[in-house]
Amino acid sequence: MLKLSEKAAQNLAALREKKPLIHNITNFVAMNYTANALLAMGASPMMAHAENEVEELVSYASALVLNIGTPSEGRIASMILAGKKATELNTPIILDPVGAGVGLFRMSSAVRIIDQTRVSVIRGNASEILSLRRNDLKTKGMDAIHTVDEAAEIAGILASEIQATLAITGPMDLVTDGERTIRVANGHPLMGYVTGTGCVSTATIGAFLAVDDDRVSATAAALAFFGLAGEKAGEKAAAPGSFKSALIDALYTITPADLAMGARFEGNH
Amino acid sequence: MLKLSEKAAQNLAALREKKPLIHNITNFVAMNYTANALLAMGASPMMAHAENEVEELVSYASALVLNIGTPSEGRIASMILAGKKATELNTPIILDPVGAGVGLFRMSSAVRIIDQTRVSVIRGNASEILSLRRNDLKTKGMDAIHTVDEAAEIAGILASEIQATLAITGPMDLVTDGERTIRVANGHPLMGYVTGTGCVSTATIGAFLAVDDDRVSATAAALAFFGLAGEKAGEKAAAPGSFKSALIDALYTITPADLAMGARFEGNH
Amino acid sequence: MLKLSEKAAQNLAALREKKPLIHNITNFVAMNYTANALLAMGASPMMAHAENEVEELVSYASALVLNIGTPSEGRIASMILAGKKATELNTPIILDPVGAGVGLFRMSSAVRIIDQTRVSVIRGNASEILSLRRNDLKTKGMDAIHTVDEAAEIAGILASEIQATLAITGPMDLVTDGERTIRVANGHPLMGYVTGTGCVSTATIGAFLAVDDDRVSATAAALAFFGLAGEKAGEKAAAPGSFKSALIDALYTITPADLAMGARFEGNH
Repeated sequence: MLKLSEKAAQNLAALREKKPLIHNITNFVAMNYTANALLAMGASPMMAHAENEVEELVSYASALVLNIGTPSEGRIASMILAGKKATELNTPIILDPVGAGVGLFRMSSAVRIIDQTRVSVIRGNASEILSLRRNDLKTKGMDAIHTVDEAAEIAGILASEIQATLAITGPMDLVTDGERTIRVANGHPLMGYVTGTGCVSTATIGAFLAVDDDRVSATAAALAFFGLAGEKAGEKAAAPGSFKSALIDALYTITPADLAMGARFEGNH
Repeated sequence: MLKLSEKAAQNLAALREKKPLIHNITNFVAMNYTANALLAMGASPMMAHAENEVEELVSYASALVLNIGTPSEGRIASMILAGKKATELNTPIILDPVGAGVGLFRMSSAVRIIDQTRVSVIRGNASEILSLRRNDLKTKGMDAIHTVDEAAEIAGILASEIQATLAITGPMDLVTDGERTIRVANGHPLMGYVTGTGCVSTATIGAFLAVDDDRVSATAAALAFFGLAGEKAGEKAAAPGSFKSALIDALYTITPADLAMGARFEGNH
Repeated sequence: MLKLSEKAAQNLAALREKKPLIHNITNFVAMNYTANALLAMGASPMMAHAENEVEELVSYASALVLNIGTPSEGRIASMILAGKKATELNTPIILDPVGAGVGLFRMSSAVRIIDQTRVSVIRGNASEILSLRRNDLKTKGMDAIHTVDEAAEIAGILASEIQATLAITGPMDLVTDGERTIRVANGHPLMGYVTGTGCVSTATIGAFLAVDDDRVSATAAALAFFGLAGEKAGEKAAAPGSFKSALIDALYTITPADLAMGARFEGNH
C-alpha cells in the first residue's frame, strides 16, 4: 500500500512545516497530555472552552477537536457554539464521543453535536461509535465488546447516514466513509494503559486534517503515525509511566521517512 | 504479620483479574495522575463529575472515590448525588478530604458528604482527618502537625463515631475502624514531592475495596502496595520528575508475590 | 554580573528553607505541572479557585499567582476576589495573561485584574504583554511577533504606567519596572515543546517573590533558575516527553551554587 504510506509521510512533513493551530475543547483528564502530544508532533495546540471566547478563537484554528469526556451542559454548549462557527468557516471538526457507549448524557450530547454542526470525522471505540446509531438509541454497558470486523459493515452504513468519516480504534483500527474502508494495524498494547490515549489519537486526526482535505487518508495517516509512535515507545519502555513519556518523545522524533516505512495499512483505498 | 501480607497479595491478584471500574469525582490537579495510576495497577478508571450523569454512571462502578480538592458547590453537589446512589447500591465510598484541615468550605463539604452518604473509608493527613471531629469544628492552619501516634487514639474514637474506617497517612500510616488498628510502614520521601500522591493513594484504596469487603484489610493492603511502589520508584529515580513516572511503572510491575514480601504492617489485626 | 547571581542563589536557598505557600488560580492544562514544579523547587503549592474559598485560603499564602488560561467568568471573578484580598494583605500578586494577545475576553480579563488588584509582576510573551497597552486595545493575531528588543522600550513605558514589573519571555527574557531593565539569557529550545512552560515560569516568579521583596531581582532570579533547569534538562533529554520529566528533576537538584554559576544576566541593575 505504497501510495497511502507516501501520503502519510507528506502529511507529517506538511504538519511540521505549517504548525497548524488546533483548537481543542476536551476533557480535563486528557487536556495536558493532548496539548503536549500536539506540540511534540509539530502542531500548535489551543485549549479554550469558555462560551464567551470559543467562537472568536476557533476562527484562528485550522481544525476543531471536540471531546465529550468530563462533560457538563456548559461545555457541550461551548462545543456547539464553536462547532457552528467552524462549520460556517469550513474548518474541519473532529468528534470524540468518549463514553457515549455507556452514558445517556454523553450519547445525547454527541448526537446534538452531530446534528448541529458539520462533523468531518468521529473517532471512538466500537461501543462509542455504534451508540450513535439513530435507530438503536439504547445504552450499552462498558463491557459491550465488538470486534472491528463485526463493526465494519454497520460503521459503513452509519458513516453514510451521518456523512462523517468514522474511525473505530482498537487492536486493528478501521476508517470508513461508507465508500472507502482502510484498516490500520499500527499500535502497542501499553497504549491501553495510559489514560487519554484515545483522546490524543483524536487530536492527532485533527492535526492531519489541518493539512489534508481527504478525510479518509488524513484519518488513516494520523492513526498510523500515532500507532507507530506507540510501537517506538514500546521499544524503549516496558511499563506505562515511562511509556507515556516515550510516546511523546516518539511523536517528536518520527520522521516522514519513518512513517512511510512503518505505516501498516490494509483495505480498498 | 504473614496473614495480612498474604491477603494484600490476594487483593492485588484479584484486582488484576477483575479490573474493577472505579468511579472518581476528583480534583483537577490529580485527575490525570489518578487515572493513570488506576490503569497501571490493573483497575478501570472512570472520571465523571457532571450532575446529570453521576447517578447513572456510578451504578456501573465497583467503588466511588470522592476527593474534595479544587471544590465548587456544583462538584460537591455531584459528589453527594453519586454518593447517595452508591449508598443505595451498597457500593463502597472512599473520601479524601483534601485541605479540610485548613479551609472551612472544604471541611464543611467533607462533613456534608459524611452526613448524607455512607462513607466506608476516609484517607487524609492527620490535620485533614482530625478536622472532621464534630465537637471541635474550628480551622487548623496548614502547619498543624500531628504525629500518627498523637492522632491514633482520637482517630479510633472518631472512626467509631462516624462509622468509617480512617486512614491517616504520613511517614507511618495508621488505619483504624475504632476496633482494629494497623500501621503501614511502606513509603518513600520523594512521594511528598509529587502532587496528587495522597489523592492517588485514596483511589488505590478504592480499587482494593472493590475486591475486598473487609475495609481495614483492604485499606492497609492498598497503602502497603502504594508505599511499596514508592520504594521501588525510589530505587530507580532520585528526583521527583522521573520518580513520578517510575511510581506508575511500579504500580504496573509489582506482583502479588512482591507485595506479600515487601508489605510492612504493624498492629493488632 | 556577580551581584545578581549571588542574590539569585540566596533566593533559592531561602525558598528551600522557608517552603513558602504559593496560591495558584491557574488554567486546567498547566495545573498539575505547575504544582509539581513548585514542589520540586522547594515551595508548597496550593491550587484552589472556588469563589467561596479563595479569600480565606489566600490569607495563608506568601504569593498569589493568577493565570487566565482556560478562563471563564467564574474563574476570573475568583481571581479578582483573591487578588483584592492579597492586595489588602500586601501579598505579592503575579499575573500570567495567557492568550491576551489573541483573545478579547482574555485581554479584557487581564485588564480587569490589573485595574482591581495591585499586581506586582506580569509575565507573558511579547504579544501578551503588549496587548495590555491602554491606548492600543485591539486584538493581535497569534502570529504577531515582537523581538524582545523591539518590545523593550514600550515595555518600560507600560511598566511605569501600570506600576508593575513586566517580564517578557522568549529566547532572551526581558525584566523591567520602567527604571531597571535586566535581560536573562538562560533557557533551552525544547521548553517551547512542553505545554505550560510559560505558566510554570510565572509560578516560579511567585515562589521567588515570596522570599525577595525586590520585584526586579526576584523575577530575574526566577527566570534564570527556570531557564537553567531547562538547560540541565536539555543535557539529559533530546525530546519533549523525557525533557518534561528532566526539567522537574532539575528544579529539584539545582543548588544555589549551581544557580550562582549558571545564571546569565545582562543589563543595568
